[in-house]
Amino acid sequence: MTNPRIAHPAYAAKVMDADAAASLIGPGDTVGMSGFTGAGYPKAVPQALARHIEAAHAAGDPFAIRVWTGASTGPELDGALARAKGVDFRLPYNSDPYAREQINAGTMQYIDMHLSQVAPMAWQGFLGPLDVALVEVSAILPDGTVVPSSSVGNNKTWLDLASRVILEVNSWQSPALDGMHDIYYGTALPPDRVPIPLLRPSDRIGQPGFRIDPAKVVAVVATDTPDRNAPFKAPDAAAHAIAAHLMEFLAHEVKLGRLPRSLLPIQSGVGNIANAVLHGLQDSAFEPMTAYTEVLQDGMLELLTSGKMAMASATAFSLSPDAAHQLNTDMARYRDRIVLRPQEISNHPEVIRRLGCLAMNGMIEADLYGNVNSTHLMGSRIQNGIGGSGDFARNAYISMFMAPSTAKGGKISTIVPQVSHVDHIDQDVQVIVTDQGLADLRGLPPKARAEVVIANCVHPAYRDQLADYYARALRDSYGKQTPTLLREALSWHERFVETGSMLNS
Amino acid sequence: MTNPRIAHPAYAAKVMDADAAASLIGPGDTVGMSGFTGAGYPKAVPQALARHIEAAHAAGDPFAIRVWTGASTGPELDGALARAKGVDFRLPYNSDPYAREQINAGTMQYIDMHLSQVAPMAWQGFLGPLDVALVEVSAILPDGTVVPSSSVGNNKTWLDLASRVILEVNSWQSPALDGMHDIYYGTALPPDRVPIPLLRPSDRIGQPGFRIDPAKVVAVVATDTPDRNAPFKAPDAAAHAIAAHLMEFLAHEVKLGRLPRSLLPIQSGVGNIANAVLHGLQDSAFEPMTAYTEVLQDGMLELLTSGKMAMASATAFSLSPDAAHQLNTDMARYRDRIVLRPQEISNHPEVIRRLGCLAMNGMIEADLYGNVNSTHLMGSRIQNGIGGSGDFARNAYISMFMAPSTAKGGKISTIVPQVSHVDHIDQDVQVIVTDQGLADLRGLPPKARAEVVIANCVHPAYRDQLADYYARALRDSYGKQTPTLLREALSWHERFVETGSMLNS
Repeated sequence: MTNPRIAHPAYAAKVMDADAAASLIGPGDTVGMSGFTGAGYPKAVPQALARHIEAAHAAGDPFAIRVWTGASTGPELDGALARAKGVDFRLPYNSDPYAREQINAGTMQYIDMHLSQVAPMAWQGFLGPLDVALVEVSAILPDGTVVPSSSVGNNKTWLDLASRVILEVNSWQSPALDGMHDIYYGTALPPDRVPIPLLRPSDRIGQPGFRIDPAKVVAVVATDTPDRNAPFKAPDAAAHAIAAHLMEFLAHEVKLGRLPRSLLPIQSGVGNIANAVLHGLQDSAFEPMTAYTEVLQDGMLELLTSGKMAMASATAFSLSPDAAHQLNTDMARYRDRIVLRPQEISNHPEVIRRLGCLAMNGMIEADLYGNVNSTHLMGSRIQNGIGGSGDFARNAYISMFMAPSTAKGGKISTIVPQVSHVDHIDQDVQVIVTDQGLADLRGLPPKARAEVVIANCVHPAYRDQLADYYARALRDSYGKQTPTLLREALSWHERFVETGSMLNS
Repeated sequence: MTNPRIAHPAYAAKVMDADAAASLIGPGDTVGMSGFTGAGYPKAVPQALARHIEAAHAAGDPFAIRVWTGASTGPELDGALARAKGVDFRLPYNSDPYAREQINAGTMQYIDMHLSQVAPMAWQGFLGPLDVALVEVSAILPDGTVVPSSSVGNNKTWLDLASRVILEVNSWQSPALDGMHDIYYGTALPPDRVPIPLLRPSDRIGQPGFRIDPAKVVAVVATDTPDRNAPFKAPDAAAHAIAAHLMEFLAHEVKLGRLPRSLLPIQSGVGNIANAVLHGLQDSAFEPMTAYTEVLQDGMLELLTSGKMAMASATAFSLSPDAAHQLNTDMARYRDRIVLRPQEISNHPEVIRRLGCLAMNGMIEADLYGNVNSTHLMGSRIQNGIGGSGDFARNAYISMFMAPSTAKGGKISTIVPQVSHVDHIDQDVQVIVTDQGLADLRGLPPKARAEVVIANCVHPAYRDQLADYYARALRDSYGKQTPTLLREALSWHERFVETGSMLNS
């Protein structure tokens, strides 16, 4: 019985079940896996591998692997392997709760990387050798072309660099994905790098499929399993307030002639605030918009459906189950208006600066001077990772960060005297938005930034406390360029850890 | 009596003395000045302006201007105007001690910017309007071509954006500068940006001179005054030790095949450590080297002289008086091997990543996890600014930071539990070097980074103190991804401010 998705004999000859394929991965192997958010990650082999690892542990044998991915994946990959205690090293981004727990317990080593830099650093040899590429694809065509899946991520690099290749061919993925990808094979190591020839988000500069050396393929596994993204969480009042502030700001920039009416290519993170912002754009006067971003989420799909957005470039889908189902059954309608690229291109600083992206990312906290923490709770406990926010923030036309003004029911203030971990330095943060308001920090020196942040962004419950800190810092700081009280700079975080609240008692 | 350096009648008709030219600048004006390190800054008009400002203040009238430059300048500009209390706003970089004092007293507003981003942000309108461009040039040719001076900086942008233009034509500058510059006029605002067509440090992509609208020129002032760079400070033992560690590292990378024998284009900061490193390269087996950097300093001139370096691209010279004199009398010999570009090109992230620069920058301090502070003493007092270090560090092939392991006679440790201000996040720092040794952080997660930094970089007087902090952080931290004791993270800086030493008593 042949699988029509595995239409080339060299690959058909390698078909086996997930268990057999997983047995080709051994202790200590470094495995480059597909997956970017809950899209396009391998679903069968990692679970089989997790069972092998559990069996080995039960027999008293050590068994752990090193895992490289595109970004986050799904529970069948990160969740299954983490629960089996089968991963001792992970990069470059994680959002799985089991893996997160082990990372923050110190038992899983984790490197949090700029997503644009993973592939180049792998090629440069700085990350060590790659043993196995384990990649989900949507089809292998009769001529041997391998059609990518619902994310591209670092797959091109894993397939090129790995000694052995295992493919999962997922029949759940729409056959209409064929032709939607743009796999650029023009990257190189210096001194042979050339300009990335991409001038518009819609430009296609590569080829639709992967080229793979069939001799490296050791297993092909057929699957038929949906991508598993988190269900859509409806935007709350804070998310709507943030979106409204942003819409007002963008409209103002258009009115002043600093942005065209179609805006500039949009980059947007994931989550309910991002979706609220995209909803806001749906109701705006801006058109026809474009996106040059990492992931295509529900709100962006709606913009494409309505026609407000002409096209979107990303490296992955990141859709709710409902939206994924809708897209999957109607893919042909969108194929000419969506391009999926390798993440080294979707996040390439060169392209982001050239296009002049409008970067809109979430944050954990920001400080008086506009430094932003995107990754670490209380300075030490990592939430997910920096992802592509650094690629976009430093190179964007306008770099915007947003979050509700408080978290944990008001026990945490998003605006603090000094962020407990810095991911984005003040130079890379032009706009901060909370439900309270928007701070436009462009052209402002540090003390003027602090005044705007206090006036516009901090929650009223924390405003006096922050203003008091700042007034005393202005008076007592060692230097007055960036007034700081060293003894108190991190005291709000200390108080939270010790008492459960950042509020002064 | 005609000045042969002012050979075009439209400009000759505007010749006046510095006093008359300075009277064309009024209170509240924003003035875009030339100057990048102690090279190519206007020398006569700022001093005349300072006298006007002092006279106004003596008469009880307020008089201050806003100053934009390339980077730092010389005492005749920043020093004279700061001493006159004539600057209330300054960007993007400063090293003048009088200006620094006012900045840190909170009386001069100062924005510390990525040097690549100044021109784009000015064009984007984010910095406000520019009233006057005050630019030193080396000649105005009979056909109206304006030959730049010993630095290019943001001059092209100031000349294009300003309402009024004042030129200082400095006969001290070598006539052989003509032909050495490459002024690229291909930049644009998005959506009209195109790739920067630069593939090698030696590529010329623009024209040798500025194009200026003569109708905007309100004054031309003749000068004959040397650039005033700081005298060369001979490298000390710590600088030599740092250079030796770096040479060993680079040789190792070449041996492993991760770098070619000619290395990759070098970016190097200024100062005695940078010069020690460049001396080390002089004695190395690496050749023929190239540089793609901000400034050309004494050590790099020596590499060009000896032939170890084939060519260097920069935006300015930054030479000791002796080296400047040597170069000035022998300029023709170097003209084909030096290119001076606008700083938006010398520091362009797109070009830096494409070329794969080896970035070597100084730092104030680094922490256990490899975050680097390049700007602020004790978190609040700015020293100079971030300059181009962010442009290079994030996009370099290998990003290296270096400093002696202690400062202030051992009272300050360069390696601290947590930096008091972050300019370079751990993702952008691959190598840390002190006189004690080198930490290669590539491919290491945070805790492994901390172990290498403690073992290799910290001064022995602080090693136990740091190891003790880290051991307790490993045990007691809120999260164990990036172990941190919030109460102690900045305590070394507190102790220095309070007792004059970071050492535990």
